[in-house]
Amino acid sequence: MPTSPAQPRPETTGPRTPFADRHLGHVPDAGAYARATGHESLEALVEATVPAGIRMREPLDLPPALDEEDALAELRRVAARNRVVQPMIGLGYHGTVTPPVVRRNVLQDPAWYTAYTPYQPEISQGRLEALLTFQTLVTDLTGLDVANASLLDEPTAAAEAMTLLRRAAKAPDDAVFLVDTDTLPQTRAVLQTRAEPLGIALVDLDLGAGVDAPADAVPAALAGRPVFGALLQYPGASGQVRDLRAVVAAVVEAGGRVAVAADPLALTLLTPPGEQGADVVVGSMQRFGVPMGYGGPHAGYMAVRDGLQRLLPGRLVGVSKDAAGRPALRLALQTREQHIRREKATSNICTAQVLLAVIAGMYAVWHGPEGLRRIARHAHDKAAQVAGYATAVGLTVETTRSFDTVTVQVPDARQVVARALEGGVNIRLVDDGRVAVTADETTRDEHVRAVTAALLAASGCEDGPEPSAGAAQDLGDLARQSKFCTNEVFSRYRSETGLLRYLRRLADADFALDRGMIPLGSCTMKLNATTEMESITWSEFADLHPFAPADQAAGTRQVVADLETWLAEVTGYDAVSMQPNSGAQGELAGLLAIRGYHHAHGDTARDVCLIPSSAHGTNAASAVMAGMRVVVVACDADGNVDVDDLRARIETHRDALAALMITYPSTHGVFEEAVTEICDAVHEAGGQVYLDGANLNALVGLARPGKFGADVSHLNLHKTFCIPHGGGGPGVGPIGVREHLRDFLPGHPLEPTLAGNVVGPVSGAPYGSAGILTIPWTYVRMMGAEGLTEATTRAIAAANYVAARLRGHWDVLYTGRTGTVAHECILDVRPVAKSAGVTVDDIAKRLVDHGFHAPTMSWPVAGTLMVEPTESEDQAELDRFCDAMIAIREEIARVEAGEWAVADSPLRHAPHTAEDLTDDAWDRPYPRRLGAYPSGTSRGKYWPPVGRIDGAYGDRNLVCACPPVSAFGEAEPGAAVTGTVPEASGAGAVDGAPARTSARTVGAAGR
Amino acid sequence: MPTSPAQPRPETTGPRTPFADRHLGHVPDAGAYARATGHESLEALVEATVPAGIRMREPLDLPPALDEEDALAELRRVAARNRVVQPMIGLGYHGTVTPPVVRRNVLQDPAWYTAYTPYQPEISQGRLEALLTFQTLVTDLTGLDVANASLLDEPTAAAEAMTLLRRAAKAPDDAVFLVDTDTLPQTRAVLQTRAEPLGIALVDLDLGAGVDAPADAVPAALAGRPVFGALLQYPGASGQVRDLRAVVAAVVEAGGRVAVAADPLALTLLTPPGEQGADVVVGSMQRFGVPMGYGGPHAGYMAVRDGLQRLLPGRLVGVSKDAAGRPALRLALQTREQHIRREKATSNICTAQVLLAVIAGMYAVWHGPEGLRRIARHAHDKAAQVAGYATAVGLTVETTRSFDTVTVQVPDARQVVARALEGGVNIRLVDDGRVAVTADETTRDEHVRAVTAALLAASGCEDGPEPSAGAAQDLGDLARQSKFCTNEVFSRYRSETGLLRYLRRLADADFALDRGMIPLGSCTMKLNATTEMESITWSEFADLHPFAPADQAAGTRQVVADLETWLAEVTGYDAVSMQPNSGAQGELAGLLAIRGYHHAHGDTARDVCLIPSSAHGTNAASAVMAGMRVVVVACDADGNVDVDDLRARIETHRDALAALMITYPSTHGVFEEAVTEICDAVHEAGGQVYLDGANLNALVGLARPGKFGADVSHLNLHKTFCIPHGGGGPGVGPIGVREHLRDFLPGHPLEPTLAGNVVGPVSGAPYGSAGILTIPWTYVRMMGAEGLTEATTRAIAAANYVAARLRGHWDVLYTGRTGTVAHECILDVRPVAKSAGVTVDDIAKRLVDHGFHAPTMSWPVAGTLMVEPTESEDQAELDRFCDAMIAIREEIARVEAGEWAVADSPLRHAPHTAEDLTDDAWDRPYPRRLGAYPSGTSRGKYWPPVGRIDGAYGDRNLVCACPPVSAFGEAEPGAAVTGTVPEASGAGAVDGAPARTSARTVGAAGR
Repeated sequence: MPTSPAQPRPETTGPRTPFADRHLGHVPDAGAYARATGHESLEALVEATVPAGIRMREPLDLPPALDEEDALAELRRVAARNRVVQPMIGLGYHGTVTPPVVRRNVLQDPAWYTAYTPYQPEISQGRLEALLTFQTLVTDLTGLDVANASLLDEPTAAAEAMTLLRRAAKAPDDAVFLVDTDTLPQTRAVLQTRAEPLGIALVDLDLGAGVDAPADAVPAALAGRPVFGALLQYPGASGQVRDLRAVVAAVVEAGGRVAVAADPLALTLLTPPGEQGADVVVGSMQRFGVPMGYGGPHAGYMAVRDGLQRLLPGRLVGVSKDAAGRPALRLALQTREQHIRREKATSNICTAQVLLAVIAGMYAVWHGPEGLRRIARHAHDKAAQVAGYATAVGLTVETTRSFDTVTVQVPDARQVVARALEGGVNIRLVDDGRVAVTADETTRDEHVRAVTAALLAASGCEDGPEPSAGAAQDLGDLARQSKFCTNEVFSRYRSETGLLRYLRRLADADFALDRGMIPLGSCTMKLNATTEMESITWSEFADLHPFAPADQAAGTRQVVADLETWLAEVTGYDAVSMQPNSGAQGELAGLLAIRGYHHAHGDTARDVCLIPSSAHGTNAASAVMAGMRVVVVACDADGNVDVDDLRARIETHRDALAALMITYPSTHGVFEEAVTEICDAVHEAGGQVYLDGANLNALVGLARPGKFGADVSHLNLHKTFCIPHGGGGPGVGPIGVREHLRDFLPGHPLEPTLAGNVVGPVSGAPYGSAGILTIPWTYVRMMGAEGLTEATTRAIAAANYVAARLRGHWDVLYTGRTGTVAHECILDVRPVAKSAGVTVDDIAKRLVDHGFHAPTMSWPVAGTLMVEPTESEDQAELDRFCDAMIAIREEIARVEAGEWAVADSPLRHAPHTAEDLTDDAWDRPYPRRLGAYPSGTSRGKYWPPVGRIDGAYGDRNLVCACPPVSAFGEAEPGAAVTGTVPEASGAGAVDGAPARTSARTVGAAGR
Repeated sequence: MPTSPAQPRPETTGPRTPFADRHLGHVPDAGAYARATGHESLEALVEATVPAGIRMREPLDLPPALDEEDALAELRRVAARNRVVQPMIGLGYHGTVTPPVVRRNVLQDPAWYTAYTPYQPEISQGRLEALLTFQTLVTDLTGLDVANASLLDEPTAAAEAMTLLRRAAKAPDDAVFLVDTDTLPQTRAVLQTRAEPLGIALVDLDLGAGVDAPADAVPAALAGRPVFGALLQYPGASGQVRDLRAVVAAVVEAGGRVAVAADPLALTLLTPPGEQGADVVVGSMQRFGVPMGYGGPHAGYMAVRDGLQRLLPGRLVGVSKDAAGRPALRLALQTREQHIRREKATSNICTAQVLLAVIAGMYAVWHGPEGLRRIARHAHDKAAQVAGYATAVGLTVETTRSFDTVTVQVPDARQVVARALEGGVNIRLVDDGRVAVTADETTRDEHVRAVTAALLAASGCEDGPEPSAGAAQDLGDLARQSKFCTNEVFSRYRSETGLLRYLRRLADADFALDRGMIPLGSCTMKLNATTEMESITWSEFADLHPFAPADQAAGTRQVVADLETWLAEVTGYDAVSMQPNSGAQGELAGLLAIRGYHHAHGDTARDVCLIPSSAHGTNAASAVMAGMRVVVVACDADGNVDVDDLRARIETHRDALAALMITYPSTHGVFEEAVTEICDAVHEAGGQVYLDGANLNALVGLARPGKFGADVSHLNLHKTFCIPHGGGGPGVGPIGVREHLRDFLPGHPLEPTLAGNVVGPVSGAPYGSAGILTIPWTYVRMMGAEGLTEATTRAIAAANYVAARLRGHWDVLYTGRTGTVAHECILDVRPVAKSAGVTVDDIAKRLVDHGFHAPTMSWPVAGTLMVEPTESEDQAELDRFCDAMIAIREEIARVEAGEWAVADSPLRHAPHTAEDLTDDAWDRPYPRRLGAYPSGTSRGKYWPPVGRIDGAYGDRNLVCACPPVSAFGEAEPGAAVTGTVPEASGAGAVDGAPARTSARTVGAAGR
C-alpha cells in the first residue's frame, strides 16, 4: 500500500506469490511449450537451442529474490539515503512541477508508458498528436519552422546540430565549428567527444561580458580558418542574456550557419533565436514539468529553419491522410539519415524521449502561453532579487542582463556555497571567486533568503535590504514581441476535467501493452510491472539535480553501483557504465572505448569496423561516429555470418581492423554456433568484438557475452530490463566492457570520479537517465538469479511455441542447428506476396483488426515479419495471436483462390475503422462483421481511429505542427448534427492565421 | 512530483494557477452564463436566485487557499504526525497488501474511481462484472446462495442482517435477537444503536469456551422468550473457532434464523457458515487488499440462503440480456425495500462500497483460491506460533482452537501491550488480565518475536523456545472441504500482464467522468482532482488500525478535527461528527440526535417525522429506523412544500411532532422562499428541522443551514466535497448539528472521547471512513473561502445556462420566484411521451450514443430528467450536452411527424453497439451513421458494449454469480473464425458444474 516511506518491513518473506510468477505469462503447463516443439522439457529445448560451448552452467551470483513489498521496502531505505535540496545550480537542470493530472494520467499510466514507438501509426494517433503538440510548442518557442519529436538531451542535441550543420555545409573539410565559451560545460564536453572522431575542430568563441554579442568575435576566433557552423548558448551558462544578431550575421558572413542552445522557458520572455537569424535551435524541455531525476530522462529538442528539415535527426511527426481521406498523423520522412546514408551517417539517433516529450507538451497545454510566461517571470523576478541584493551589499554581479541566473563575484565562493546549503539551497560554484544562482518555478522567498544570507555573510556588510518582489530586470529590446502557443490546443484544456478527458481520449486512440501483445522482434515488449514503476515518481529519486553534491545522492549512486555490479554479473563483463541514455548512445560509447584502447596502444590506424549485412542500421552509423570505416560482412543462406567471408575481410583489413560488431543471438533470431570461432578470429587479428546486446533477453542466465568472446556490449535496459518503451523512449543503454577496456568508459567533466577519463562524455549527465534506473534495479531485485534465468528460458520457449503452432501456415525463415529458434522468429511473407499480392503491411494492419500490434515489419529481412512474444505473455494470448495469424492465412487463401481481389479484400482494407464499417455505402465483397470482428468476438474490441495511412502524401505535403482543430472534424459547439464526418481539409493548405499559429506548410526542397 | 514526504515546501505561494481555476470548468467568459439567463453578472444571477433572507454576506472563515504543491506539502506534515505500527489488534481490521497492479489500475485510476453507481447498466458493464465477481467470491466463501454487491462495514451489515431476519420472521413482535457474547464489540454497539429505536431486544448468548458451541446455550439465554434470530461471530472476537452446527439448530428449533459474522479469509480454511446451517452471513472484505485507513472505507458483505434474496438490502448485480440477446449485467431486483416499503422500510442502504468491493474481488482474482489459502495459512501459522510460545512459557492460552487470533492470560496486560509496542507491534488489550494477538498477511517473524518477547517478560521465565514455523493448530472437523473460487475468473489472470489487460478491458467498457459529463441531478459529479486523491494511498493514512492508540493517529485525527471545524463553518452548525460512512447513515445519525434530544427532555412521545412528498426515499426509511412515524407533507404545483398543508400537519401532530426532514434547495432544483417560515413553524411546535444536505453544492458560501433555521444536516462529502463516487461508493455522510444537539452525536465504545455519548455508534469505526477524509481536506485547503463560494456560484450559473440554452426545446419543470433554477433543473419529458411515445429511457440511452451519461431519470418526478452540470464542466462540454439534447428533440420531432415509428427509431434502438451497427442485416429506417455518430463526429467515440438491457428478464431468471466465460462469447483459443458473435446461452440455465462453480439460478420465491 505505501507510496511513501514509512516503517520499513523486515526481511523475511511473506506468503505472497514470488514476483517472477507475476512477471512470467500465465501458462497452465509450461512443459507444453517444449512438447509442442518436440522436446520433452524446457531444459531440453534450451539445451537444443543454446550452443553448448557458450552455455553457463553455474547460477548467476545475484542477491536472492525479494517479493514486491520487500523489494519496495529495501528501495525505500535506499531512497532515504538521498537528500533533496532546493536546486539553484542551473546548468540546464531546474526544479519544476509535473502537473498532477499529467503525472497520474501519463507518467503513471500504462496506456502511455507501455506503448511502443509509433511505427504503426494507425494505432498510435494519440501519442502522435501529443508529439505534434510538442513539435508545435518547440517551433513556436524557438521561432523556427520545423521541430522534431525530441532528442535525448541538450548536449547530444547540440552535437546533432553540429553534425547536421556539417552535413548541410558546402564548406571545406577543414572548416571548424565555433563554440561559445559561455556554453554549458557538459555540452562543450559532449561536443568534443563527438567532434574528435569525425575530425571536426572546435574553436572557442568568446562573446564577451556585454549585452550584445560582438560581431568581431567571429573573425577573431577564426583567425582565417574556414567555418561551417557555430553553437551559441542563450542565455549563457553564466546567465548572461546577449543579443545574438550581430554574431549570427558574422558567422553567416564567414560561410557558416548558427545553432543556438536555448532555454525554452527563457524563450517565453526573450526574442527567440529563430528571429535572430539562427538556423537551428536545440535545448532541453526538462523544466517543462519533467523531473530532474539526477540527470534524466528528459526530452532534448531540435528545431530547424525551412530547408534543413530533411537533415533532421530523430523522429518527425507529420500530418498525412488515411485511406478515407481523414487527417492522420505518422512519422514523416522516415527514409533519411541512417536509412539513406547508412555507413555515411553521422547520426545514430533511434530512440527519442517520447514519454517525456509528451509530458513537456502537456505542461504547455496545461499552463498555456500566459501561464508559461508567468512561471518564467517568477524565475526572472527571483533571480533579479538575488542580483539586486548582491549589488546592494556591495558585491559585483557579472551578469548585466539575465533571465533566471546571476553570476556574482565573492571573496570565497566555497564558503558561500556552503552557507547557502545550510539554508537548504544548492547554488553553483563557478570558481573560487564566483558563484551562480538560478531560480525556477519552485523557487520561494525562503530560498532567495537563504541565498541572500549567504551573500551577506560574504559581503562583510552588517545587514542588507529586504529582497524586493517585482524586481525584474529590463530585458530591453530582447523582450519577446511575437506570440507563441496560439494553437487552440494550448488554450482549450485549462480545467483538470478538460485535460483529464483529453489525455484519456488520446490514450484510447492507442494500442499499448495494456491492451494486448506487442510481438516486436528485437524490441522485447515485456511486462513493465507496477512495482518497478512506482519509485520513479518518489521525490527522493525524482527531485535530485545531477550536479548536486555526491553525498546528497548517496541513494541514487547506490542504485547505479548495484546495477553496475549486477549487470556485470549478468553479462560476464568486468565494468559497466550507466551513462549512455539510449541503445545507440551505448553503441557509440562502446566503439569509443575500442577506439580509445587502440589509440592508447598506438594503433591509431585501426579504423575498420566489420558489420554483418543483417545488422541494425544504427551499428553502421555508430561506427562512423566513432571515426571508423564500415566494411560489410556477408551472411549465408541460413542467415548466419558467412564465416569464410568474415575471414576474408579480416585478412584484407588485418592491420586496420578495429572491431567487429555482431548481434547475438543474431538479428535473424538464431543462436549461431560459430560465435566463439568468430570472436577468436577477430581477436587473433588484433580487433575487438562489439556484441550488440539488443537480444540479451535470450542470454540472461544462459550465456554471458563477456565470457564467450566479446569485449564490449551495450544493453537495452528498455528491452531486457523492463524500462518501458514509453511510446518511443526513454531508452537506457549502459555498456559493459572487459577489464582491458575499463579505462575507456565515458567520462564527465563535472563528476569528480569520471573527470579524468580518457574518453569524454556521451550524455549530458554523468549517470545518464539515472532517474529511471530504479526500474531495472527493482526488476533484478525481485527476480533474482533463478527468476531471470527462467524468464530467458520462457522467452525462448514462447518463441518456439509460436513457431510450432504456425507450422504449416507460415514458414519460419531461419532456425538453428536443431531446428529451434532463439527468443524470436522470422515469418516469411514473400510467398504470399507472390501468390496473392498480399504485403507485409496488409498482414500487419489486419492484425490490428484482431486486436494486436504488428510484429516487426521487413527487418532484418524485407518481406518478413519478426515475432518476439517475450516471457511475459500468457499462453492464451500467444494462442490468440497464432489463431489470428492462421485466420489471416486463410483469408489470403481466399485471395489466392480468386474469391476476393486483393485490392478489395479485408486484408488491404485493414485496419477497419468503426466509421468505415458503419458507412451506409458498403460495396465490399466481404461482410462488415468479418471486417470488424475477424476473431469472432466483440469483447474488448480495439477500434483504430483512422484507416490505412498514406505516408507518401504527407511527405509530399509536409506539415509538422498542429493544424487547427477543425481539420480533425472536431465537433464545434452548436454545429449541425449530421451523419457524416468532415473530410480532411486543411492538411496540405497554408493556414491563413497570423504569426505562429497552427498548420504551416514546409517546402519540400530541403536537400 | 513528490509522492512521498521530502523537504516540505515553505508557505509562500508559487507562480502556478490557483487550484480553483483548475477545479472550475473552463469558461472563456463566465459572465456569458449570466447573460444567457438575462442577468448582467453572475452576482446578479445569484441575487435573483438565492432568497435574500438566507443569504450570508460575510465570507467564510477558512484558511487561505493553498496551491496544489503547498497543500500537499502541508498534508505531508500532517501525515508525518501519524505513526504506522504493525497491526496485531484484530477486531475486524487487518494488515493487507493491495496488489500493486490493482492499486495503480483501480484505486488510482480515474476510469474506476470517477464512475457513478451503475444505474445505466449499458455503460457500466465493467464494474458490474467486477461486482459480480465480488458476489461470486462472497457466495463461494460463505457457502450461501446469493450475495449483494457490498454493504458499508461489518457492524452495519450485521445490523442489516438483524432487520432482514426481523422482516423475514413470522415471530411475534416481542421476539428477541440473540447476540453472541464473543461478537466484535463495535458490532455489538451498532446492533444496540439500531435495535433500540425499532423496539428489538438484544439478548446475550454465551457460547462458552469450548470448540463446540453448545446447543443448550440458546434456551438458557432465551429463558422462554420468543426469538426471531441470532448473530454469531465466526471466529469469535477472542479468536475462538467454534463449531456452530448445534447452536444454529437450536436457534431454528426455537423459531429463529441465524446470521453469522464471519472473517472471509478464515473461510478459506474453515467450514463456511452456510454449510453449518446459517441463513445469512455478513462481514468485512477489508483484509482482501483494502487498506485499513483508520477505519474505512471497506466493503462489508452479506450473503443469504435461497429464499431470502428478495429481502437483501443494498445493491444486487444480476445477469440479464440486452435487446440483441447478449448476456448483460445490471442491478437486479431494484424495486425492493425503500422503494416498495418506503415508510415501512427498515433499511436505508443506498450507497455501497463499490470501489472497495472491486479491489477485494480483484484481490481474489489475483491470488486465486490457492493463493488465498496460502495467505490464510500464513496468518494461521503465525498465530499458532504465538500460542505455542505462550504455552511453552507457562501462560494460559484461552483460545483452544483459533484461526489467526489467540487470547492469552497475562499478569499485567497493559505492560504486555506496552512491551509489544516497544517491539513495533500493536496488540489488543482485552482487559487487565488478557491480551489478544492477531496475525495477518503482513505478519513477519520479527513481529512474532516482538510479541513473544513481551509474553516472555510477562511469564517470569528466563527464556522461551524459538517460535517454530509450521506450527499450525489442527482445525479438526472444521477444516474446509468444499471448493471455492472455481469460476475461471479466479484462475485466468495470474500474470500482471493478464490482470492489467483485464482491468483495462473492464474500465474501457464503462463511461466515467474521465470520458465526459455525468449530469446527475442531486448527485453532483464534480471533479475528483488528482491532488485530492493522492494522499489516500500514502502509508501514513492508509495503514492505520482504527483502534491503534490515539497518539499514533495524531495526523489523521488532525484531519478529522480540521474538517469538523471547516464543515461547521461552511454549514453554520456548532458541532460535526465524521462518523457516518454514507449519506443514509448520516440521516440516521441526525435523526437519532433529534430523538436523543427529545428523550433527554422527556418528550418520548415525539415520534412524528414530517417528510415532503418530493423527498428522497432514504428519508422515510431513515425516519423509521430512528423509531419515528412518517407523515407525508404535500407539495404545491411549483414543486415547493405546500406551506398550508405543512401547517395543518403540524397542527394535527403538534404534541407528537419530532422533526421535519427537508431538502434545500429542494429536490426540485429550487430555492424555496418559504424555508425560514417553514423552519419557524416546526420549531414553534416543538419539532426539530433536519435539512438534507444532498444539495449543499448550491449553498456553500452563499447560505448556511445552521443559521437559517435547521438543527441538523448530513453532508455528502462524495457529492459536495469531491470524494469520488467510485462506481457506487464509498460515500461519506458526516452530520452537523446546532449546539443543543451536540451531546447527541454518535458515540463509540472503543474511542475514549466518544465512549460516553448518549447515542451509540452508527458505523464500525469511530471516525467512519477516515482513510479518505484527506480528499475533502485537500479540496477545502486548496479552494479557500473564495474558491468554494465561486464553485457554488458557477454551479448555479451552469444549471441556469443549460436551462436557458434548452429553452424552446425542453421545458424546465420548476423554477424559483425569478424564473431561475438552483444548481440543477428538471426537464419535462412527459409531453413527448404523449406526442411521440418517447420515454425517459429512450432519451437517456440516446445520450449514450452522443457520449454522455444520462441525467437522473424520473426522480423526483416520474417522466422527467434532472440535470446537474456542476461547476467543474467546461462550457464546451455544456454546449455539447445541450446540442445533444436539442438533436434528440429534433429526432423526436421526426417521430412526431410520422417519419419514423418510435419502435424503430434511433431513440428506441439506443444505445447503438458497434456490433449492431456492423450487422450485415440492417433494415432500420435511419442510416447506420446516424445511429453511430449522432453528433457528427467519430472523434473520441465511446462504444457501449451492450445494447438496451432487459431488466425484467433477469429478475425473472435471477443469476447473481459469474456465469462461465463462454456465456460472454469470449473467444476460446483456437476457436473457429467467423463473423458472428455467439448469442447468450447459459444466462438463465442451471450450470451443471460441481460445487460452488459459476452460474446458479436462484428461485424467485423469496417473499
